[in-house]
Amino acid sequence: MKKIINDPSNVVPEMVDGLVRSYPQYLRQLPDTQAVVRADEDSMADKVGIVSGGGSGHEPAHAGFVGKGMLSGAVCGQVFTSPTPDQIYEAIKAADHGKGVFLVVKNYSGDVMNFDMAKDLAEVDDIETKTIVVDDDIAVEDSLYTQGKRGVAGTILMHKILGAAADKGASLDDLEKLAQEVLPNLKTIGIALHAATVPEVGKPGFELKDDEIEYGVGIHSEPGYKREKIKPSKEMAEELLGQIDKTLNLDGSKKYAVLVNGMGATPLMEQYIFAHDLLDLLKEKKIEPAFMKVGNYMTSIEMAGLSLTILELKDDQWLDYLNYPVETIGW
Amino acid sequence: MKKIINDPSNVVPEMVDGLVRSYPQYLRQLPDTQAVVRADEDSMADKVGIVSGGGSGHEPAHAGFVGKGMLSGAVCGQVFTSPTPDQIYEAIKAADHGKGVFLVVKNYSGDVMNFDMAKDLAEVDDIETKTIVVDDDIAVEDSLYTQGKRGVAGTILMHKILGAAADKGASLDDLEKLAQEVLPNLKTIGIALHAATVPEVGKPGFELKDDEIEYGVGIHSEPGYKREKIKPSKEMAEELLGQIDKTLNLDGSKKYAVLVNGMGATPLMEQYIFAHDLLDLLKEKKIEPAFMKVGNYMTSIEMAGLSLTILELKDDQWLDYLNYPVETIGW
Repeated sequence: MKKIINDPSNVVPEMVDGLVRSYPQYLRQLPDTQAVVRADEDSMADKVGIVSGGGSGHEPAHAGFVGKGMLSGAVCGQVFTSPTPDQIYEAIKAADHGKGVFLVVKNYSGDVMNFDMAKDLAEVDDIETKTIVVDDDIAVEDSLYTQGKRGVAGTILMHKILGAAADKGASLDDLEKLAQEVLPNLKTIGIALHAATVPEVGKPGFELKDDEIEYGVGIHSEPGYKREKIKPSKEMAEELLGQIDKTLNLDGSKKYAVLVNGMGATPLMEQYIFAHDLLDLLKEKKIEPAFMKVGNYMTSIEMAGLSLTILELKDDQWLDYLNYPVETIGW
Repeated sequence: MKKIINDPSNVVPEMVDGLVRSYPQYLRQLPDTQAVVRADEDSMADKVGIVSGGGSGHEPAHAGFVGKGMLSGAVCGQVFTSPTPDQIYEAIKAADHGKGVFLVVKNYSGDVMNFDMAKDLAEVDDIETKTIVVDDDIAVEDSLYTQGKRGVAGTILMHKILGAAADKGASLDDLEKLAQEVLPNLKTIGIALHAATVPEVGKPGFELKDDEIEYGVGIHSEPGYKREKIKPSKEMAEELLGQIDKTLNLDGSKKYAVLVNGMGATPLMEQYIFAHDLLDLLKEKKIEPAFMKVGNYMTSIEMAGLSLTILELKDDQWLDYLNYPVETIGW
């Protein structure tokens, strides 16, 4: 294992400290936690707070999306490990400005359980919370750490849409309704060229041969749905888009947002080439994305690979929310 | 070689196409070139244009920094290869709005020569140009592709400062003076954990053993100044900061901008941990950066490693320029 770290058991506190101190204009760390909230308290006044989080190793998710117009707070668990309920609770308290707090949780059993316990703690304090559990990964049903589908990069578009709505004054009920409307239209699938190494484990989560790729892999090295010899980017794009097409029935008369998300070690060069192939394939279907982003948003430490997320924009307001200005490090 | 590409000889045209079509709100590709200019022509009216570029493989540099408040255009050469004079010339013509064009060139022999030839072509058209050759890398004197010091990640801060000044109406002479004042205060040094693989070459630019790192490596796999066993992040930070200290004489009474730049395959987790160690070391010198950024700005395809750039802010206006709002993909 070759990494720029110190003690493997300290990576999360050192990382969070480095992040917050590098960007004090955006972020503040809650004392005795690995929870991060907006430095700009004023931007949260009279608004519903939005809190997300999960295991670390997915940077810039989620702390990099804390800022005006997006998240109020993010809780950083140990690497690939759910944050604890007490820390989520602290973030909820800090994010509450009298209008309640909306929780965006990726669908992993530990995250769902711990956010649920934090919700119970907050209720004792009369802080109202509601939750969306994001399960955008269409690759597999059930997985190593999940019942049902996994939550992956589509979560970032969920953050963005809810964050904009909250900033414009949406109530907790409005946000719940919005999140529930967005979710079934949000689909992601990924591909890996090599796995990530959790610092405390010291070796990659799985092994791929020099000429192998795996389709549908999770962001914690969970297995995907097939392993094949490496192919040209265009054929990878065909496979991933084909899988999404099966669930969204892509149609040139509809509007879509597209996120090409690098997994951590994949250079932008490769992500842009994949985007080129993807846009050609979409063009054949007479689709030109109404919104698109390419880059590292929900990574898996130094996994090589990428994921494709497509959101069918059933409501033009969702597009406005995606384009709404934010002040974050990661968007 | 395991990459998300198609034909290795097509990576640059496919990449540029993917980039521009993913972000049509920011970028426009000049016909029959790999040169990219601002989509928003109006933002360049009555202003000095700023054009940069160089070999590809450093994404988001330079095309990702094209946009209001930063570059007017960027020319993408083949991977690790200077763009041709005719393409640079096309970018200069597109960037000229009657006030001339300022060229930001990294110090590699090919880039310097080709930008110079493009400058001559532009002069025939009565387009006035001036140039800064950035040589911020303090690691080595002369190198594989350079006489003198190499131009590396500090170039991004140069783009940012000049871009803001141009947007606020600086003349070509103003920009030349500003660039010449900034340059001697801008210092960078890097470290690599593994090298990049140029697609058309198919194997890494150099080999490091599983426990080796190289200090002072260039962004095209040029040799550095020493190779050692891997160390904790804190010791890497001590080494890099120590080298910069020798040239800048860091002093708690002065102001600094800091850029921690990932080389492509190094996850943000490691960059933030390095930032944590760096900020601790700076604190011992009673320095708190006036401006700081951490992330992938000037990469070397999928090289693992990072670089540290420090700019002594001799003028408070430079800080204002760094904080000046921009509309780009990469900043």
